[in-house]
Amino acid sequence: MTKLFGYRVAATDGRARRGVVSTPRGDIQTPAFMPVGTAATVKGMLPESVKATGADILLGNTYHLMLRPGAERMARLGGLHKFMNWAGPILTDSGGFQVMSLSGLRKLNEDGVTFKSHVDGSEHYLSPETSMEIQKLIGSDIVMCFDECPALPADEARVAESMRMSMRWAARSKEAFGNRPGHALFGIQQGGVTEALRGESAEALKDIGFDGYAIGGLAVGEGQAAMFSVLDYAPTMLPEDKPRYLMGVGKPDDIVGAVQRGVDMLDCVLPSRSGRNGQALTRMGAVNIKNARHRDDPRPLDPECTCPACTGYSRAYLHHVFKANEILSSMLMTWHNLHYYQELMAELRGAIEAGSLDDFVAGFHERRAKGDLVLV
Amino acid sequence: MTKLFGYRVAATDGRARRGVVSTPRGDIQTPAFMPVGTAATVKGMLPESVKATGADILLGNTYHLMLRPGAERMARLGGLHKFMNWAGPILTDSGGFQVMSLSGLRKLNEDGVTFKSHVDGSEHYLSPETSMEIQKLIGSDIVMCFDECPALPADEARVAESMRMSMRWAARSKEAFGNRPGHALFGIQQGGVTEALRGESAEALKDIGFDGYAIGGLAVGEGQAAMFSVLDYAPTMLPEDKPRYLMGVGKPDDIVGAVQRGVDMLDCVLPSRSGRNGQALTRMGAVNIKNARHRDDPRPLDPECTCPACTGYSRAYLHHVFKANEILSSMLMTWHNLHYYQELMAELRGAIEAGSLDDFVAGFHERRAKGDLVLV
Repeated sequence: MTKLFGYRVAATDGRARRGVVSTPRGDIQTPAFMPVGTAATVKGMLPESVKATGADILLGNTYHLMLRPGAERMARLGGLHKFMNWAGPILTDSGGFQVMSLSGLRKLNEDGVTFKSHVDGSEHYLSPETSMEIQKLIGSDIVMCFDECPALPADEARVAESMRMSMRWAARSKEAFGNRPGHALFGIQQGGVTEALRGESAEALKDIGFDGYAIGGLAVGEGQAAMFSVLDYAPTMLPEDKPRYLMGVGKPDDIVGAVQRGVDMLDCVLPSRSGRNGQALTRMGAVNIKNARHRDDPRPLDPECTCPACTGYSRAYLHHVFKANEILSSMLMTWHNLHYYQELMAELRGAIEAGSLDDFVAGFHERRAKGDLVLV
Repeated sequence: MTKLFGYRVAATDGRARRGVVSTPRGDIQTPAFMPVGTAATVKGMLPESVKATGADILLGNTYHLMLRPGAERMARLGGLHKFMNWAGPILTDSGGFQVMSLSGLRKLNEDGVTFKSHVDGSEHYLSPETSMEIQKLIGSDIVMCFDECPALPADEARVAESMRMSMRWAARSKEAFGNRPGHALFGIQQGGVTEALRGESAEALKDIGFDGYAIGGLAVGEGQAAMFSVLDYAPTMLPEDKPRYLMGVGKPDDIVGAVQRGVDMLDCVLPSRSGRNGQALTRMGAVNIKNARHRDDPRPLDPECTCPACTGYSRAYLHHVFKANEILSSMLMTWHNLHYYQELMAELRGAIEAGSLDDFVAGFHERRAKGDLVLV
């Protein structure tokens, strides 16, 4: 019998939740950080290395995958898991956000979006129905509703109009998704930074009914304070017995604040992108390895970190391979960042279980404040 | 007591030798292929992955390392082994060849070479004495004499003149190297494609006396037939009880032909560079993964290969990550190529031990001839 998708809360601490999302491809310990494997690879990492950092689930981008290698091709080749050699669960976004941010010339109406590929200029179409079909072809375990999200700043009327269309699209996504035991469909709350719109969106999604609920339309330029204000109310508007996924977040302190406010799942390109750009994220704060200050430094990035970059190499070496434009720079720095992110999540989970989240968060900020003195 | 550098022949088959080079940092099974770690990294590979392919020894480039990060800095940081996290033996070239091929504006005389860095244009000087000093600072286990080699085609007088200066430089290198137990100094035979000059060079080197002897000045555009002609006599001019190292070679069939002719050690950037350029080297021949023909191919590069690229991924995936310009493409393709090279060396060693090298070589060429039909 196919194992079903499920979620249970094991412990809480304030609004924070320690839980498990279960899928036929394995459990996801929450709060969970999902590394982003945009084009069927977490850039610079072998999938077994991503797994070794502690990741239970990856995110794939429907927009990129539909354009290259293409959804039908991927289905013929046995789906994304087999294609990219990742046996665990995969969540795919709907393509909506990236159509807005990456593609050329687009025509948006109630039906869907026509856009041009950033790869070869070819014309493509996405709608709730085609997005569900493509995510099915890809073989996604957790499918996201097709939605739209205006670039911020946007006036409230525009945000409301967009949110209401996204809710109509959510209903069409649910209808098109159908009944797929073992696969989950998540609705996406919109409404910008307006509490009433967030509430209206949450009610619309609950009326439709989903396996999980995402908080969309944040981390798009509104700043951490505004994001945390929304997270003070948005998660509690969503069902308690389903996972809550904050899309596209974020920096380590964003993640800590979001988890404190009841978020269960997050994803972000930051650890991998920063790594490629020579920025290491550590419990002491950020280290810019390209800085000449590291040229003769025999110390590791973080003496307490157990990742391959920190156990095998000096800052001087990491500086050298970055300056020499060596592939190994991206490999080691990405590995470190993903390792740190997964360790942070494990610590957050442990703190929630122990009922000591406030103490953990205080210590988290204290170490970073000290780190500013020794690292910058 | 410090373990000394040594070499012993365990078996021969025709002119081919199966041996062991012993060093304080570990044994090198010969014939051995040495992956190139130009700038203190084998591009796209973690050192533990290079080790996993079967490599016993790496090559480092003195020219690159003296310019960046710099020999004094590397010495302060504990030497190249610690810097790049490679515990096994390392051979460094002398910098001579790369000064000629990579650097800007140079002034060459009997004393040495003044040249401009390709990294930042700064002026540097290399001579037998400074090369020995730099290779010592780097911490090289097998040090190469500083030599000069004219670009081919060159007239015989120019080749003879250059060879004789290199022999005088070899004597100065030996003098400057001094007595360093556990470290080896290799002389380099020059003389182009002229047997008499190769003989004169070999006699000069033997008079000085080295721990090993390299064959230089080949694989510089003379073609395989001319190279094999030289290898028909050059190795036998060198002492039987010392390892023979053919510099900068080569393609798989070059390696097979060189081993048949008595070569014990080889190095080349080809497997890593080809990998980054999307070319896989297999026992069936070369596979250009960028070719659209592979787009829908669910087969591995080589179904018999046990490397991570072949056991985890389809040609379709490898094509995809190459086209998407993903770092993983370089990582997997390089790993495959280095794995194949080390497997080829292990097979050559086994065939020499078994006295079946001719059969192995016949099979090697037969499979490639068949492969041309199915792969190209």
